[in-house]
Amino acid sequence: MSAPQSSADFEARLRAIGDARYHDKHPFHKLLHGGGCTPDQVRAWVLNRYCYQSAIPRKDAALMARCDDPALRRAWRSRIEDHDGSEEKEGGIVRWFKLAEAVGLDPDYVASKKGALPASKFAVEAYVRFVAEKTMLEAIASSLTELFAPKIHKERIASLLEHYDFADDRALSYFRNRLTEAPKDVQFGLHYVLEHADTLEKQDAVAAALTFKTDVLWSQLDALYAAYVTPGHIPPGAWRPGEGLLKEAAA
Amino acid sequence: MSAPQSSADFEARLRAIGDARYHDKHPFHKLLHGGGCTPDQVRAWVLNRYCYQSAIPRKDAALMARCDDPALRRAWRSRIEDHDGSEEKEGGIVRWFKLAEAVGLDPDYVASKKGALPASKFAVEAYVRFVAEKTMLEAIASSLTELFAPKIHKERIASLLEHYDFADDRALSYFRNRLTEAPKDVQFGLHYVLEHADTLEKQDAVAAALTFKTDVLWSQLDALYAAYVTPGHIPPGAWRPGEGLLKEAAA
Repeated sequence: MSAPQSSADFEARLRAIGDARYHDKHPFHKLLHGGGCTPDQVRAWVLNRYCYQSAIPRKDAALMARCDDPALRRAWRSRIEDHDGSEEKEGGIVRWFKLAEAVGLDPDYVASKKGALPASKFAVEAYVRFVAEKTMLEAIASSLTELFAPKIHKERIASLLEHYDFADDRALSYFRNRLTEAPKDVQFGLHYVLEHADTLEKQDAVAAALTFKTDVLWSQLDALYAAYVTPGHIPPGAWRPGEGLLKEAAA
Repeated sequence: MSAPQSSADFEARLRAIGDARYHDKHPFHKLLHGGGCTPDQVRAWVLNRYCYQSAIPRKDAALMARCDDPALRRAWRSRIEDHDGSEEKEGGIVRWFKLAEAVGLDPDYVASKKGALPASKFAVEAYVRFVAEKTMLEAIASSLTELFAPKIHKERIASLLEHYDFADDRALSYFRNRLTEAPKDVQFGLHYVLEHADTLEKQDAVAAALTFKTDVLWSQLDALYAAYVTPGHIPPGAWRPGEGLLKEAAA
């Protein structure tokens, strides 16, 4: 059996996966951040990305549902609170609805997921199943795309503010909050995998889990690009420009 | 509570879903059947569609795993035999490998699913989960895309023979066999849902299950089109032309 990589080499390997495969390299991302999206392309993104947002607390509950360690459950629980909110604090999902409103979408329509691309739903549910069915180590490892998230969120705030009229503090509050939430989460996750992946086999499994997660994110942007950037390819039943709008935006 | 549709109206409703959403309306399908695919686009199709082929017996086993009726299990079992084969008869999966060889792909590479698009895998696994988790009625209803399959298989044999050098009886034996297998299966499935969907609510659930299944099929062709027809959009890690070839084809 081969020896495990050193902690530093292993962390570098994980970061290299992000450098090669994180969805900030996707053409749709570049279009969005470069200001090249039409209002309808931004709407399609907000609408479909909601599938992901809304699945995150279920994914985290799936992880906690199979975890017999109260300390780990306690550490993980804040992720659900961050998205679902509490008495004192609105959560990420409510903030995503503010973004939806800012781009003219009816939040109830977004919440229904009626117009979401099947591919968005399939990718997101694959993530929930992965966390429910793989080892705890792989389940936690799949959250490590958060290593790369603060950079994308910081850039997103700046570039949306620069390029799009709808963007203001209220619309972008989701991303602003993730700037403080994600680093706390990722420190926990990174520490966990560095400590528990104590064989090369486990390190390989962690790398594969992170790679899987980059596929989940990438394929969502692939589907968006194919449906709403390439002309003429909106699948049957998926959102079409003009649907699901707030009265003001439709007028 | 509203009355259920008549059997004839309900069957017409199901057939209309196929008319509107079955994947023979997809641009990739039209490209393939019209002879417009490059050899690499045909390979990408064979490679990715294998994810679906290989999941079908798991899907059918998932259905049988939750079925307490020996007669229904017995009727359903032939589907697994059709795909996995028996002592006397090769199955659909072996026939799919013949198609893979005919287009120059190494069957071991195809079987590994290493180069398959994540979106293909996500869609197919969504189908397996659907059958494992929904009601038995919905699980059976999701197989009803077979209502529309014989037509597509018959056309496929003719159009592949007409347009592509690789096509011969050996390469196309999968489709030839499906011409006799699918009608037997679909008669059983159609009879089952017409008999068991005895309220409007259940009929709606059947229609939704069939719609879901058309999404599973459509999104696979969406992913193929986006990755291998639209230039420059192959996702990280997915098959690239030149990979996974038989020695003869690579030479």
